[in-house]
Amino acid sequence: MKPYVIGVDLGGTNSVFGIVDTEGTIIAEESIKTQSFKTAAEFVNAGLGCIYRLVEKVGGIEKIQGMGIGAPNANYYTGTIEYAPNISWAHNGIVQLAGMFSGELGIPVRITNDANAAAMGEKLYGTAQGMKNFIMITLGTGLGAGIIINGELVYGHDGFAGELGHVIIDRSENARLCGCGRKGCLEAYCSATGVARTAREFLQNTNRPSSLREKPVDKIESLDVFLAAQAGDEIAKEVFQFTGTMLGWACADFSAFSSPEAFIFFGGLCKSGDMIMKPIEETYNKTVMPLFRNKAKFLISGLMNKNAAVLGASALGWE
Amino acid sequence: MKPYVIGVDLGGTNSVFGIVDTEGTIIAEESIKTQSFKTAAEFVNAGLGCIYRLVEKVGGIEKIQGMGIGAPNANYYTGTIEYAPNISWAHNGIVQLAGMFSGELGIPVRITNDANAAAMGEKLYGTAQGMKNFIMITLGTGLGAGIIINGELVYGHDGFAGELGHVIIDRSENARLCGCGRKGCLEAYCSATGVARTAREFLQNTNRPSSLREKPVDKIESLDVFLAAQAGDEIAKEVFQFTGTMLGWACADFSAFSSPEAFIFFGGLCKSGDMIMKPIEETYNKTVMPLFRNKAKFLISGLMNKNAAVLGASALGWE
Repeated sequence: MKPYVIGVDLGGTNSVFGIVDTEGTIIAEESIKTQSFKTAAEFVNAGLGCIYRLVEKVGGIEKIQGMGIGAPNANYYTGTIEYAPNISWAHNGIVQLAGMFSGELGIPVRITNDANAAAMGEKLYGTAQGMKNFIMITLGTGLGAGIIINGELVYGHDGFAGELGHVIIDRSENARLCGCGRKGCLEAYCSATGVARTAREFLQNTNRPSSLREKPVDKIESLDVFLAAQAGDEIAKEVFQFTGTMLGWACADFSAFSSPEAFIFFGGLCKSGDMIMKPIEETYNKTVMPLFRNKAKFLISGLMNKNAAVLGASALGWE
Repeated sequence: MKPYVIGVDLGGTNSVFGIVDTEGTIIAEESIKTQSFKTAAEFVNAGLGCIYRLVEKVGGIEKIQGMGIGAPNANYYTGTIEYAPNISWAHNGIVQLAGMFSGELGIPVRITNDANAAAMGEKLYGTAQGMKNFIMITLGTGLGAGIIINGELVYGHDGFAGELGHVIIDRSENARLCGCGRKGCLEAYCSATGVARTAREFLQNTNRPSSLREKPVDKIESLDVFLAAQAGDEIAKEVFQFTGTMLGWACADFSAFSSPEAFIFFGGLCKSGDMIMKPIEETYNKTVMPLFRNKAKFLISGLMNKNAAVLGASALGWE
């Protein structure tokens, strides 16, 4: 075994390249602007530039065991990014990203979606160490998930398992439209954008006072709701209660599926702490099948202040 | 490796003990009435009697690799049956069934719930041969499930994963009450009892003619609905359409979780064939996330006419 791996967090804005040791310490990192390239080839070239500079610091590429990339719409089985709506050079086709890097570097390169990378990071370096069955839920702009069963990531038949943002949580007529084109998806309610939507709805459906009314309703973001709730605003607090309740319902269904030891939450919305975690856990234990009651843990990621995506992706470099 | 295993299908009425060879052929079998015993010890004694007679036919216990039991409320991890409502000698406590048999027989004995046993049988001897990711759904009195991911049964943290009859498919006020004490569970709609309930509701909500009206409404069973639908009765056909639609919705959510290659259906309701399978598949492809559309197979078990539960349970004997 060689002493280092490379982890890459390929995001819609920045792509961060890091050298990671066996303890999960990021030894060195560099980043580039993901969207400043016209083609995938140009992006890979710039990425290789970062990598070559970084590996110099640890003794060259022969010290690197492998590389892992966490990216949106990534397929572990094929090493590709497929039709990634938010990446200009990958939005209307299939990019053989893993192969493009491994061909140049001469080391194994694996790729997985960002939520799966977060789950791997949590398992190796975070709060899920030693757990063989857990579900990582990332609450960002959308809702992503990485599912670990019997100690392994679940990729499914086609590499796209773990799309828990797209289970249907509301089958009623007036369920919310989701970005995927369907109605009632969990992500349309339980995500940063979902929280902002809920706040706008709540404000429009009542005349009660709220500090959120100081901003035009269509400009309200999840951070505004968080700050207002923290300051004691009743409507903002109800938004978090509503969001947590829906997540609690969803987790109850997830337990019926894979009965995990823990649900681990990651992402901006978790910074609200108990405000979201309490309604999740309370709703879960109130509504889950009696068989599962008071068994699952509800935890916040142990990697919230570290670069979890780089760490998680780097884990694939050890495979 | 020894040449035979024992498979046991422990049901609410009969318990069938079978000797199975490496090809999945049942060489010999005997059965006893599950509920004719006062205690678990008496049941085990009678079962041992069957087993000793059966193994004589194949050369004695030294020809047996191991034994597997499929039973309601069984826990694979602990080898126990726990609070099984329909088994008189196990309904109010925990029975160490696997240990009781293995202590006497001197061979490894494993136990799992009946739907898991069916999934194992399907994987080894049925239509799922070669599949690494599929979901087995058993439509009997209730709705059971066995989930195979990365080629392995999913037991979850506590041994109780795969309770797919208890995901919530209807969150509305007037959702049906389920046997588990909650409201809106899939099993309350998609099972033999669910089909009978749907038929009663449909008949009471309309004056349209139906051959089902020949029977008192509270006496209607799923078999009556099947026979009526087969004979062209419109209301009976709508009952199957309704049941299949709900199963299609549920399968769409299950794909977001583990993206299986196939959904395989087993049990009495499947005898209706296309009448239930068509609306399942059509609804699935109409409502699933675009990413998963037209990928999953919808199959009827390849073991419908064999003793699938004995075969499936016997698979555990090879572990």
